[in-house]
Amino acid sequence: MIDPVLMWLNNDRENIIDRLKELVRCQSVSTDSFYSDGMADARALLVSRLNKAGFANVGELEAGGHPAIYAEWLEAPAAPTFIVYGHYDVQPPDPVDKWHSAPFDPEIRDGRLYGRGVSDDKGPSSIALETLAAFLSVEGRLPINVKILLEGEEETGSATLRALLRKYSDRLAADAVLSADGARWRADLASVNVGSRGNARCEIALKTASKDLHSGRFGGAVRNALHEMSALLASLHDRDGGAAVAGFYDGVVELDDRERQRIADIPFDEDRFFDDIGASARGEPGYSVLEQLWARPTLEINGMWGGYTGEGSKTVTPCEAFAKLTMRLVPGQDPEKVGMALAAHLRAACPPGVDLSIDLDQGASAAYLVPKAHPLLMAAEIAIESALGTAPVRVRTGGTLPLSDIVKQTLGLDTVMLSFSTADEDFHAPNEFFRLSAIDDGVATWVKLIRMLGGHTPGLYSVFKGQKPTETWRDLY
Amino acid sequence: MIDPVLMWLNNDRENIIDRLKELVRCQSVSTDSFYSDGMADARALLVSRLNKAGFANVGELEAGGHPAIYAEWLEAPAAPTFIVYGHYDVQPPDPVDKWHSAPFDPEIRDGRLYGRGVSDDKGPSSIALETLAAFLSVEGRLPINVKILLEGEEETGSATLRALLRKYSDRLAADAVLSADGARWRADLASVNVGSRGNARCEIALKTASKDLHSGRFGGAVRNALHEMSALLASLHDRDGGAAVAGFYDGVVELDDRERQRIADIPFDEDRFFDDIGASARGEPGYSVLEQLWARPTLEINGMWGGYTGEGSKTVTPCEAFAKLTMRLVPGQDPEKVGMALAAHLRAACPPGVDLSIDLDQGASAAYLVPKAHPLLMAAEIAIESALGTAPVRVRTGGTLPLSDIVKQTLGLDTVMLSFSTADEDFHAPNEFFRLSAIDDGVATWVKLIRMLGGHTPGLYSVFKGQKPTETWRDLY
Repeated sequence: MIDPVLMWLNNDRENIIDRLKELVRCQSVSTDSFYSDGMADARALLVSRLNKAGFANVGELEAGGHPAIYAEWLEAPAAPTFIVYGHYDVQPPDPVDKWHSAPFDPEIRDGRLYGRGVSDDKGPSSIALETLAAFLSVEGRLPINVKILLEGEEETGSATLRALLRKYSDRLAADAVLSADGARWRADLASVNVGSRGNARCEIALKTASKDLHSGRFGGAVRNALHEMSALLASLHDRDGGAAVAGFYDGVVELDDRERQRIADIPFDEDRFFDDIGASARGEPGYSVLEQLWARPTLEINGMWGGYTGEGSKTVTPCEAFAKLTMRLVPGQDPEKVGMALAAHLRAACPPGVDLSIDLDQGASAAYLVPKAHPLLMAAEIAIESALGTAPVRVRTGGTLPLSDIVKQTLGLDTVMLSFSTADEDFHAPNEFFRLSAIDDGVATWVKLIRMLGGHTPGLYSVFKGQKPTETWRDLY
Repeated sequence: MIDPVLMWLNNDRENIIDRLKELVRCQSVSTDSFYSDGMADARALLVSRLNKAGFANVGELEAGGHPAIYAEWLEAPAAPTFIVYGHYDVQPPDPVDKWHSAPFDPEIRDGRLYGRGVSDDKGPSSIALETLAAFLSVEGRLPINVKILLEGEEETGSATLRALLRKYSDRLAADAVLSADGARWRADLASVNVGSRGNARCEIALKTASKDLHSGRFGGAVRNALHEMSALLASLHDRDGGAAVAGFYDGVVELDDRERQRIADIPFDEDRFFDDIGASARGEPGYSVLEQLWARPTLEINGMWGGYTGEGSKTVTPCEAFAKLTMRLVPGQDPEKVGMALAAHLRAACPPGVDLSIDLDQGASAAYLVPKAHPLLMAAEIAIESALGTAPVRVRTGGTLPLSDIVKQTLGLDTVMLSFSTADEDFHAPNEFFRLSAIDDGVATWVKLIRMLGGHTPGLYSVFKGQKPTETWRDLY
């Protein structure tokens, strides 16, 4: 028997798509003040909808940046409370001339809705909001308590999210976070994302003389900043490609046999992975590609430059060289300690006569891993299997989703990603699209999950309150 | 008793300066077609003057680029024949707003004439031309045969000079070349430049994937082009800063004890050399700074770049990296062989999976050293000592003066530099100037040298014809 809320949602499908289109028409680009009207338009639309749906305390939360939208429904005193996270801001549409339809005039072609932000994150957020609103419409209540938080700065690196969560930590008290952001790994595999790598940044500048020098008049007697930079950067890795920085791997949690087996069981074609990008394998020996991407840290040079880079040749002995580095961190690594280890390595490797400056960015974030037996994770897995008919595999992303780490640090909560966008949907690029079939999968899964979470199961509630999950968890459903 | 030609020149000093100013007003920038009228103006002025002075066959020689000016006086059948070289083209005046007076409106301040090209090479060339013209005015003849060649492409790298010298090799047959280009090393030391380093260029491009990759989704499993470039560039030098390229030093002629002693005897303050440029010593161990600059080859990275180099950070695993290299070569090194040794090293050091392309520039030139006992060199040294009262020291330049090598290869002739500009006169920079006192030193030296070369001394002529110089050479004067 179909759930009445799901039936309502299925009947309302065309309206859901129309409302999503209306939201996409709001040009809510957070990275460029040119679009501040579009940001305000999106907020006004969301506030109006949340009020109309019956949420309480609908309004804006802010901590110096673009405001977030907040709304709550807290009338299920015995049930757990979840923050439902999404973001209403989008990437800039540039390069606009590469789009086949206007980025802010959404268009459906071949079962896909094209437009800036449809996949990241207006489509997935809408699935969550439409599901919650449908419960209120059909049943006048929700089985759980919900605090909706729609960020306005995700695409600018969540600059004030940490401050915002700290500022409103009382209001945001909850049992866990359900995120409608974070894409599904592949279209052909049901999966749930249980972890992401952290990141940390570092910029290096070298100086070897007070000015660039003529390579004829000075070359051979003085240091060349580019030689020094090359040697410094080359010293960061060993021959196998691993980091050669003392302390870099300190604390790294190795995968256990069960995790390795789970990863090995995931269908993944390594040859095709490399063929698609015209690259060859070059990871740490002893780890599969997925292990390298999900469970091993990296130290990457993202950019380097110095000296003459124009047409032709210039016989200069450059006095300055620059490099930008980022690290992807895995569970067990402390971003601050890793940054200090990197700085110590660079200082030790830098010879006298070279003026080295190291800028360690403060915006580092740690890796995040949902606790293996977290009840929300397990509930999500069961909901996906139940709604879609396929048990999801647990995957991670090699990328960084700072939200989970920030939420953990500020509110002490774990985050489970339940997004229905897919990694191939060209977000951050021209012709971003969202599969309309994701709306069907999404609302079915969200309805199932909300029912489960509100199922008045004492065992479930107790684990949200910090107790060990019971062995019979799965049997509850 | 003062030489009557020198007396004429001294009396004509104001006119010499006026004529130099008139030449500087011609905006003969060879690197930018915007200035083609200025190039033509300079040629017309020089042709007119050379005709008026009494030279024969005055006209233009060209081989596809800016024409050179040619003129000759060949009516001393028993005397040797010299090509007198200079160039009429100048560097662009940019940045014009850094000039204290207009670059093409020459102005005298504190005994210095300011203007684009006054020092490089219109002032020094004028000294040679004025001296030759004065002989014709005062005596109706020259003591030697002269073929004047004023190049129009020196500032663009003498692109067609080689072809031009080959094309007109018959007309340019001579015993040696006297160059009015190439600056004096220092204002406080009488010197004659006996050698220059050669150069060769190489550009490297690396590719590790078909596109830049997201460092989260791919980092840790694929090669990073910047890592590979750093390692490749770092492999070029050993810990002491010497080149680590097999074959790089093949054929390098080591200084003998006498040459080392001569260099050691030159007053040179190494500490001040480094202080002036805010750099510290970093040359091959076992060589003094002047030896490093004059007699040791270099392998310099002039520029390198790749990945994201803008504001902030971008988490990219770059697929491409680039570097520009130049070498300064010393006597005994073959530019082509050194280039091949470098390419072989790079290919051997480049791991599989990295697509390396190496572009070895064809415009390499070898180092040049005037034969130690070349009669023109010895005559120039004596002329300087006799005219200025100080014996010059033999110096070299660490830079490259392709003229000498090109002349040697195309015409088989040696070149002696007799320029009266000084290395500190800001040529190639704003506020280029020329010391007016150089005109007095210059004409006195040129008059003396021309008298010596035309002195009807059989011993002198014979050595120009390839015989060993006699031990009594110096005694002849």
